Amino acid sequence: KKGEKKLPAVTAMAWLCVDAHGSSALLQSDKWRVAEKLGIQARDLRLLDPQLSTTASPCAILCRDRSIIVNLEHIKAIITVDKVLLVNYGHDEAGTKFAEELGQRLANPGAASKFASSMKDLQQSVNSMEPHSQYGTTGPDRTMEGSLPFELRALECCLESLAASYDQLTTDLEVAAYPLLDGMAIGVTPENLDQVRRNKNKLVRLTTRVQTAREVLEKFLNNHDDMHDFNITANRDRENALQEERARSLQEANAVLGGDVGETLMGHSAPSSVSVDSSIVENEVADVEMLLEAYYMHIDAAFNRLETLNEYIKDTEDMVSIKLDTHRNALITVDLVLTAFSACLAIITAISGIFGMNLESGLETDPHVFKQVTLASSLGSLLVFAIFLLWAYKRGLLVFA
Amino acid sequence: KKGEKKLPAVTAMAWLCVDAHGSSALLQSDKWRVAEKLGIQARDLRLLDPQLSTTASPCAILCRDRSIIVNLEHIKAIITVDKVLLVNYGHDEAGTKFAEELGQRLANPGAASKFASSMKDLQQSVNSMEPHSQYGTTGPDRTMEGSLPFELRALECCLESLAASYDQLTTDLEVAAYPLLDGMAIGVTPENLDQVRRNKNKLVRLTTRVQTAREVLEKFLNNHDDMHDFNITANRDRENALQEERARSLQEANAVLGGDVGETLMGHSAPSSVSVDSSIVENEVADVEMLLEAYYMHIDAAFNRLETLNEYIKDTEDMVSIKLDTHRNALITVDLVLTAFSACLAIITAISGIFGMNLESGLETDPHVFKQVTLASSLGSLLVFAIFLLWAYKRGLLVFA
Amino acid sequence: KKGEKKLPAVTAMAWLCVDAHGSSALLQSDKWRVAEKLGIQARDLRLLDPQLSTTASPCAILCRDRSIIVNLEHIKAIITVDKVLLVNYGHDEAGTKFAEELGQRLANPGAASKFASSMKDLQQSVNSMEPHSQYGTTGPDRTMEGSLPFELRALECCLESLAASYDQLTTDLEVAAYPLLDGMAIGVTPENLDQVRRNKNKLVRLTTRVQTAREVLEKFLNNHDDMHDFNITANRDRENALQEERARSLQEANAVLGGDVGETLMGHSAPSSVSVDSSIVENEVADVEMLLEAYYMHIDAAFNRLETLNEYIKDTEDMVSIKLDTHRNALITVDLVLTAFSACLAIITAISGIFGMNLESGLETDPHVFKQVTLASSLGSLLVFAIFLLWAYKRGLLVFA
Amino acid sequence: KKGEKKLPAVTAMAWLCVDAHGSSALLQSDKWRVAEKLGIQARDLRLLDPQLSTTASPCAILCRDRSIIVNLEHIKAIITVDKVLLVNYGHDEAGTKFAEELGQRLANPGAASKFASSMKDLQQSVNSMEPHSQYGTTGPDRTMEGSLPFELRALECCLESLAASYDQLTTDLEVAAYPLLDGMAIGVTPENLDQVRRNKNKLVRLTTRVQTAREVLEKFLNNHDDMHDFNITANRDRENALQEERARSLQEANAVLGGDVGETLMGHSAPSSVSVDSSIVENEVADVEMLLEAYYMHIDAAFNRLETLNEYIKDTEDMVSIKLDTHRNALITVDLVLTAFSACLAIITAISGIFGMNLESGLETDPHVFKQVTLASSLGSLLVFAIFLLWAYKRGLLVFA
Amino acid sequence: KKGEKKLPAVTAMAWLCVDAHGSSALLQSDKWRVAEKLGIQARDLRLLDPQLSTTASPCAILCRDRSIIVNLEHIKAIITVDKVLLVNYGHDEAGTKFAEELGQRLANPGAASKFASSMKDLQQSVNSMEPHSQYGTTGPDRTMEGSLPFELRALECCLESLAASYDQLTTDLEVAAYPLLDGMAIGVTPENLDQVRRNKNKLVRLTTRVQTAREVLEKFLNNHDDMHDFNITANRDRENALQEERARSLQEANAVLGGDVGETLMGHSAPSSVSVDSSIVENEVADVEMLLEAYYMHIDAAFNRLETLNEYIKDTEDMVSIKLDTHRNALITVDLVLTAFSACLAIITAISGIFGMNLESGLETDPHVFKQVTLASSLGSLLVFAIFLLWAYKRGLLVFA
Repeated sequence: KKGEKKLPAVTAMAWLCVDAHGSSALLQSDKWRVAEKLGIQARDLRLLDPQLSTTASPCAILCRDRSIIVNLEHIKAIITVDKVLLVNYGHDEAGTKFAEELGQRLANPGAASKFASSMKDLQQSVNSMEPHSQYGTTGPDRTMEGSLPFELRALECCLESLAASYDQLTTDLEVAAYPLLDGMAIGVTPENLDQVRRNKNKLVRLTTRVQTAREVLEKFLNNHDDMHDFNITANRDRENALQEERARSLQEANAVLGGDVGETLMGHSAPSSVSVDSSIVENEVADVEMLLEAYYMHIDAAFNRLETLNEYIKDTEDMVSIKLDTHRNALITVDLVLTAFSACLAIITAISGIFGMNLESGLETDPHVFKQVTLASSLGSLLVFAIFLLWAYKRGLLVFA
Repeated sequence: KKGEKKLPAVTAMAWLCVDAHGSSALLQSDKWRVAEKLGIQARDLRLLDPQLSTTASPCAILCRDRSIIVNLEHIKAIITVDKVLLVNYGHDEAGTKFAEELGQRLANPGAASKFASSMKDLQQSVNSMEPHSQYGTTGPDRTMEGSLPFELRALECCLESLAASYDQLTTDLEVAAYPLLDGMAIGVTPENLDQVRRNKNKLVRLTTRVQTAREVLEKFLNNHDDMHDFNITANRDRENALQEERARSLQEANAVLGGDVGETLMGHSAPSSVSVDSSIVENEVADVEMLLEAYYMHIDAAFNRLETLNEYIKDTEDMVSIKLDTHRNALITVDLVLTAFSACLAIITAISGIFGMNLESGLETDPHVFKQVTLASSLGSLLVFAIFLLWAYKRGLLVFA
Repeated sequence: KKGEKKLPAVTAMAWLCVDAHGSSALLQSDKWRVAEKLGIQARDLRLLDPQLSTTASPCAILCRDRSIIVNLEHIKAIITVDKVLLVNYGHDEAGTKFAEELGQRLANPGAASKFASSMKDLQQSVNSMEPHSQYGTTGPDRTMEGSLPFELRALECCLESLAASYDQLTTDLEVAAYPLLDGMAIGVTPENLDQVRRNKNKLVRLTTRVQTAREVLEKFLNNHDDMHDFNITANRDRENALQEERARSLQEANAVLGGDVGETLMGHSAPSSVSVDSSIVENEVADVEMLLEAYYMHIDAAFNRLETLNEYIKDTEDMVSIKLDTHRNALITVDLVLTAFSACLAIITAISGIFGMNLESGLETDPHVFKQVTLASSLGSLLVFAIFLLWAYKRGLLVFA
Repeated sequence: KKGEKKLPAVTAMAWLCVDAHGSSALLQSDKWRVAEKLGIQARDLRLLDPQLSTTASPCAILCRDRSIIVNLEHIKAIITVDKVLLVNYGHDEAGTKFAEELGQRLANPGAASKFASSMKDLQQSVNSMEPHSQYGTTGPDRTMEGSLPFELRALECCLESLAASYDQLTTDLEVAAYPLLDGMAIGVTPENLDQVRRNKNKLVRLTTRVQTAREVLEKFLNNHDDMHDFNITANRDRENALQEERARSLQEANAVLGGDVGETLMGHSAPSSVSVDSSIVENEVADVEMLLEAYYMHIDAAFNRLETLNEYIKDTEDMVSIKLDTHRNALITVDLVLTAFSACLAIITAISGIFGMNLESGLETDPHVFKQVTLASSLGSLLVFAIFLLWAYKRGLLVFA
Repeated sequence: KKGEKKLPAVTAMAWLCVDAHGSSALLQSDKWRVAEKLGIQARDLRLLDPQLSTTASPCAILCRDRSIIVNLEHIKAIITVDKVLLVNYGHDEAGTKFAEELGQRLANPGAASKFASSMKDLQQSVNSMEPHSQYGTTGPDRTMEGSLPFELRALECCLESLAASYDQLTTDLEVAAYPLLDGMAIGVTPENLDQVRRNKNKLVRLTTRVQTAREVLEKFLNNHDDMHDFNITANRDRENALQEERARSLQEANAVLGGDVGETLMGHSAPSSVSVDSSIVENEVADVEMLLEAYYMHIDAAFNRLETLNEYIKDTEDMVSIKLDTHRNALITVDLVLTAFSACLAIITAISGIFGMNLESGLETDPHVFKQVTLASSLGSLLVFAIFLLWAYKRGLLVFA
């Protein structure tokens, strides 16, 4: 709590900076200087603070004017138009491993380059169809570059690493949980109960994390404007073009007429000539949408598997509960029969006890009484027992499951 | 995990290619070449990979510029404007069967052709009412073609197969589960408990799959733009028309004036003349909407049946639980009475045991004591038993369910 | 499954055709001919097929160009601008009864005519205020017709019948379930458990159906365009007007100038003059909205009642479960005391048994031993019993609920 | 059911009519005449029918052209621009009480007048800043009137009464339920179980009602158009202004030119000059929004309290269930020990019983056998008991909670 | 209830007024005068009333024309363009503490000022690129001011205090609950059951509060218009600018022409020149969005933690329930074996009891009978016991968990 107030103090941090060629360099810099440079606010930086990671939201992607802030589990990065800044390099193993992967992926774009080349072909064939179009000439850099802009390639690496990580965690949990549950379905022991409880707890935490990531992606997919904000390269280029044009038109206007006329001229013509190309914007959004959609599906699949596991646990518990109830009823039923049997024996014992008293009953010497009493009590108690069993059976009390 | 990095390597795959006449041919081709040709990205292809089917989302339909990627359970296909590429032909039985069905359906459009012809009649009668309208002449090809475009017919086959498959699985589950549950309601055995658990588990998995399919369709139905993307034939035609017009207007402009003027001219006139026909777009969307809506309803019905079955299982379990509790209470009540009876007999036994000691009580020869003790103890214990029963009944302990 | 492929075969069906005057006629016609005539597709017709009613969605309303397809429980109808076609006439009782009701309602519009006349008055008073307005003269037919168009009146009959049917079913269920549940709260028997289970099952099925109907109406209420599609009469009139105007303007254009100019003229003027009247559209939507809203509220009320009943069942079950648990604890507590009592008697029995052995203890003739042993064992066991009760009470084991 | 068909019959009803000055008068009038006058349809009136109140939705607010239909629990009213018609006056106490309150509130606007005057001041100061603005002169009546229009003041009374009523009912339930639940947490008796069940049932019904009211308000808050419909005074004024202007422009047009030109002129100019003032519309919507928002929060707070109570009940039940289970286990544990104790005594009894047989064992006269047997059996059974306890403890069976 | 009617009465209240420099002053003022001054309505003020805080919604932020009303737990404030009015100063500790914090934060903006300065730099560099642009000159004050406007800085303080408070409460609950639950998982005692119940109750209440705050922020984030209303400074400036311009144009118009022409001129030109700057509006919305988003994430994280804790409690309870069931079954199984053992002993006792009767059996002097009977009964009962155990084991009754 106290620490939050001291935040503006100068705090040097180590950043791992990975550029478009995959080469990485360690950067010692003041937190606030970085924020200043990248146009990020203090609030946003706090999201990436490894010390606050326990209380902060586990998953967040924020689009700012000149950077994308990515906080996805072990990936805490700031993506700009030409480099990726990693915050938690060296803090934990997963972060370090991701840094290596990211470097390799950015160095040789691999699969990405594969379809990038095919897209280049396509683009060329389209260009050959309309060789002189203005369309082709305004954006030659983009067309030649072919593949996705740097920030999207970096973002894809992050999302792929996240999806793979969730996939792995889900698989680990499934591998651990399913045999355990099947074991519990056969016989409940305090040990497997505790293990199930521990796995259930893991499941809840993992589900929350996967769900948060899923919601983050879903929110972006539902909002075209937000998706367009991911194209920071394109947005920067457009911004620059806009300013250049303004400056030029202003100069022209100043040259020809007075300032007043130029102003109104600019007000009308400037925005229209640059921001009109809605089909380009459409394409940029489509790039981001396809990217996010694919990983949304991946993460959604993991989420569905966790949900299924959760249902499986619940169903097993319900069944175990009914099984234990049924078993208990069977035990009590047998107990009941034994109690009835004991009670019948107790009848004999009581009767024989009476005749075993050292008191004068006057029957002591009668040679037939012994047999009579013995038979009568034995048969009597047997009869009582039989009647009881019959009654209980008729009442439906003796259903052995 | 490691395999994902090797994806760009050349991997030859066998595709079953079904064309508009229903004839199918096996196609050995590199995965990436196909993707290149159809304008699909690596991410999208992975969805169809039979090896990854367990971890990927079970249901997905993706609209790309020149193809529709369909991954619906056993149907893993890429639909283009004139053919369907099936991925998992020969891998599993369901996929093979679907391939046959698809061929037959595309060969003789059956029911589809039926209302297609009726629509042609209608279209003609409409045309006869406005014989000279420009409306009728711009789109004669479409009107003559009559029925749905190829890609929608193929999509309908996929959806119908999916809906039928879900319907069958739901019916199978219902046939298996309902008698089982009614059996469990009568008497719980470990066997039927295990069977119910297995069916419940199947139900959860099937529900997840049906729900995913339902959500996929729902998402499309909620978004008119996405639905329009299904008309890849129409979109291709429009694109071509647009480019031809552009080329022509450019030529004209170049012929008459300089390039600069032509550019601005094109910028304003070209898009408006082609993309205006919003009523055609409306019709195309309506075609897709009606198609998706019908199968959405089918799948929704299956989903509702699964939900009902799920509720039935839950209710049965609740009832079984209460039934077992009630039964147990009945058992314990009888046990209690027996215990009380035994305790009363134990009184007699204890008393008679005292008089049975080989100790001098001074009463041994008294001829009345035997009867007195016997009667007293018997009646006494009987009285205790009766009082206990009365008390227990008054306390509400002896309610036999 | 096999039957679906044979669908295009000619299948004669009996339709009951009810016209605007309430008179009905039986119509033997090929299914596909009807579909052709009404502009309905094969998919839509299948929804109404009585043979498929078990697997299809129970509730659906589909708006097509020239008809409304209504599949609401027992009502399977196609509404056109001047007649209603009933599919399941004679198949089941509810359908037949609805056919009669529908005829009567359409013959003498009853309540509907009542406020229709009032609306006419209002319309006239409005007209008298603006006697020469163009507004009044363009749409005289509509104003004079006064009430709702035929298709909405027919739809209202369907919805009213549906709402009444759900209301009745809900009331039946409530009448059956509430006394049963109160009975179960007092005492659980296998009989009332089974009855509750059966009612619960009915409740689940009815809830699903009512909810589906509710969602169907809600979906329409949330979408103004869809609601407007219900006005098939108005849409037809507008379509006709549009075509007439087009034809006329085309003729004029042809008469005065060449064809080319006419086309462009029409392209701009024709749509604007007809489709502009947004206030008329607003009114048409408002008519449908008020209609659907009223029955949505009715069905929502039924839904709420079912939900309340469901909650009542759940609460009763929870309470019964706790009651059974409490009762069981009471039984076991009494059992415990009896067991303790028996154990104390067993102490006496054991001691007296020892002295009852026919072995020489050397105490046989001591006249005081008998009393000593008897007293000691009796008091001892009594003391043990008392101490046990005290201990158990102190431990909180003897709380009689 | 039959009664619904007779609805058009003349049914005289007693309405309580409260005007803007708070004075109320009883009005005997035909139901249908009222509906005619106020532009309400038969369907809407049925909502207010006290006889149908049990089956109808408990909460509904409907905006019609010239009236607001309010059906909020005990408040069944029709609000017009200058009076409120109460339906259920005299039927129930709550309705009568509300009628009195409404009269008082409308007579002396109280709190409302307070901030109304302040708003007038503000309005004047704003006016003084722009003394000659056209803005101020077109709507002087509205500005001078100052406060909310009549229909919103009446609506506020209804909502306040509703919110207060729900608040009271929630408080009543809380006061009754919380001590009861705390009592049940200590000890479960059939009496408090029944009371909890009754309170739970009340809670469910009240929650449904509060939730319905909440949803009604939420639906309005989510839709600006619907909120604007509440301003029936303003809408009426605008309508009138529109018609006047039309009439005037028509006259002018007729005077100067022929009818044809005037029509087209009107078509373009008339709507624009009246409906343009979007800021006025904004203000009207804001008035309604603030009104509904405040009472939405009130009702939402009640809803949250009911939800919390519901959770409290559930948690208490869960805890009671675990408590009963724990208690039962404790009872059975003690029972087990007693049973073991009895079994050990039974060993002694059995052994001594054997030596107590009147059969020749040949040990009768041995003076040491008695002690040997007595000691051996006693110590033996004690040993068995001790071993059993030790074993049970080791197995974890003897954990006293 | 009665108190609500007396609200318009003059009620003096003590407000703590904190201005932009952090200096605070106590203000004794009539409630209604404040409301008048700030353009707040009576309904809104009631939200802040400390006496009504128990029944009112715990979290609400309302945007009014000239102020933001903030009611967030212990923070009850009205934020205007240049000061914050705190209502509950001195009523409770949390409110007082917040007042101090707020003063400090507003006095030295701390972290906020940090990035504010960086933004100023950026703004300057942008300005230097387009030195003569009209853009820069119309809004110099805003640009120079640099940081967030006062009302947003004050709002940030409120939200930060709220988020920190929720974070602390969540942590407190977690610290208390987790060890307790782990303890309950090991052994259930009435004490820890009660403590868990109390913590669960706290959890429910806290969750409701956090969720309400979360929903309040979410609602704003989903609505761009509502977010823009937060910029009351900017809105005020715009309003003023609009009025000045109007006044000026009116004067000009009056000077040149008659009043009529000026009016129409103003109607068209005035709004366009002021309200057009949509990019400024965009920036203002973005400021608010980033502010709310950051604290939304904070509160959402707390919410997720509470949800996880809730799940943990539920899972623990489920597990405890199954554990108790399993334990009980084990107890009953042992009890069953003991009962069977006792029954077998009872067989011996009964047989020996019969031979212990003082009746003439004729076997008394046979020297072999004693051994025969003893052996037969002992072995017989042992056999019975063994057979029973074997049977029970075969039946699956003797599974020791």
